[in-house]
Amino acid sequence: MTHAPPPAAAEDVEARVRASFARQPAMALIGANLLRIAPGEVDLGFTHRADLTQQNGFIHAGVLSMAADSACGYAAFTLMPAGADVLSVEFKLNLLRPAAGARYIARATVLKPGRTITATRADVFALAADGNETLVAAMQATMITRT
Amino acid sequence: MTHAPPPAAAEDVEARVRASFARQPAMALIGANLLRIAPGEVDLGFTHRADLTQQNGFIHAGVLSMAADSACGYAAFTLMPAGADVLSVEFKLNLLRPAAGARYIARATVLKPGRTITATRADVFALAADGNETLVAAMQATMITRT
Amino acid sequence: MTHAPPPAAAEDVEARVRASFARQPAMALIGANLLRIAPGEVDLGFTHRADLTQQNGFIHAGVLSMAADSACGYAAFTLMPAGADVLSVEFKLNLLRPAAGARYIARATVLKPGRTITATRADVFALAADGNETLVAAMQATMITRT
Amino acid sequence: MTHAPPPAAAEDVEARVRASFARQPAMALIGANLLRIAPGEVDLGFTHRADLTQQNGFIHAGVLSMAADSACGYAAFTLMPAGADVLSVEFKLNLLRPAAGARYIARATVLKPGRTITATRADVFALAADGNETLVAAMQATMITRT
Repeated sequence: MTHAPPPAAAEDVEARVRASFARQPAMALIGANLLRIAPGEVDLGFTHRADLTQQNGFIHAGVLSMAADSACGYAAFTLMPAGADVLSVEFKLNLLRPAAGARYIARATVLKPGRTITATRADVFALAADGNETLVAAMQATMITRT
Repeated sequence: MTHAPPPAAAEDVEARVRASFARQPAMALIGANLLRIAPGEVDLGFTHRADLTQQNGFIHAGVLSMAADSACGYAAFTLMPAGADVLSVEFKLNLLRPAAGARYIARATVLKPGRTITATRADVFALAADGNETLVAAMQATMITRT
Repeated sequence: MTHAPPPAAAEDVEARVRASFARQPAMALIGANLLRIAPGEVDLGFTHRADLTQQNGFIHAGVLSMAADSACGYAAFTLMPAGADVLSVEFKLNLLRPAAGARYIARATVLKPGRTITATRADVFALAADGNETLVAAMQATMITRT
Repeated sequence: MTHAPPPAAAEDVEARVRASFARQPAMALIGANLLRIAPGEVDLGFTHRADLTQQNGFIHAGVLSMAADSACGYAAFTLMPAGADVLSVEFKLNLLRPAAGARYIARATVLKPGRTITATRADVFALAADGNETLVAAMQATMITRT
């Protein structure tokens, strides 16, 4: 019954995403950075580091979920009105292959935007030194708009 | 049709969990340590630090999942035969309240052990300075035995 | 900032749950009935029938999720204000053992109630003819209040 | 270290899927039928019926998960060796929109096949009388090969 706010200009959305991302110390902890911001889509990358690994030298599943969750959250955030904040309600991550690469990219997409609830998916890829991509994890996540 | 290996002695299990945990650099990254190891149960704790937070000053959901996933994995590992390794198949985390505390504890329990697949749950609590506990996140996770 | 509505009287809550449940034809399809209604808790049962099984004669995973999802939804509903409706945002079900019993019970509990989002868990048990219970599935689910 | 079995001929795979599906009484219960079988992909459809609905007249979330889970299971099954059986380890379903259509289709794809564990996704669409498709639910599921 209420009217949706007018969509924000693209440059405003990108600026809001970058400003919020810069206020996430946990993203600095794993060396993550924003690679691409588009309406309903965010790519986030980080480089392999020994201190991000589990007992076999692969990236820890929880570190993959940090990247995928933030990518999903910001993908949802691109479709939210100015002044809103995004919080994770829940996420589910399937670990598909050992995460062994030179770099990693989490690519998130909005499945269904909503005034309150936004459903998202992210695929996490390992990039070999030659740029070859392997899908290593898949997330399905729910985000909520806080105004 | 095959016979399960004899259960390992308790001290051996604890030693194996501690040895594997010590080889997880990602656990050092977030300052996590093992608080309790029992058959099918592991508690894991970490202290609040600004570099583990998201844009509102709460612990990042992905950091909560790092602790909960490792707790679930080691809870499963306590019931696995000597020489086996544990890997995460998938996990799902519900974020229930803002994770704002002095310390955090992930308490994991095995729901159903198996020769190949082990199902687990973990509850993550925030502890206030006075020791008061608040449930902040809940995980349900699947682990696999690698021999 | 808004005030929560006063909690409804227990008999009103039970009447509202029973009225909503009676309007779910899918619950009649699997022969499910309400066994227990308490604040934040609902038990729901159904009897083994051949037409609810998969290719090995066990109850189909999706049928288990029908029972668990409804139990979670009504557990959340018991804590919602009069006039509200409950909808499922998402659920996750782990299948732990083959569902082979005489009857099945889904026991749902609210993990965290909220004005908009309520997090829940349900355990699904198979009951042998002698009443012996076996945990066969575990759900973690998110519900939303619609007013 | 072991060798994968040679892939089965396409007609054999389709015959095996159809034979297993025919032995799932729960699929007959909801009127589901196989629409498409390809390596790593299965589409499954069913028609709107009042006895499949919840309290608002939409298809019950659990019924959607019956269709999506079976589609995921058979998508995984197409890549399994002859003589193997498929079981669900877990699934997660996000409900995106009210499931109100004339028919419904669950389209499943294998994300990562494996000798033991296969990860899958399914999208569930509502089809209007004019054939227009709306995404109503999204599943991410883990299947296991039983030999």
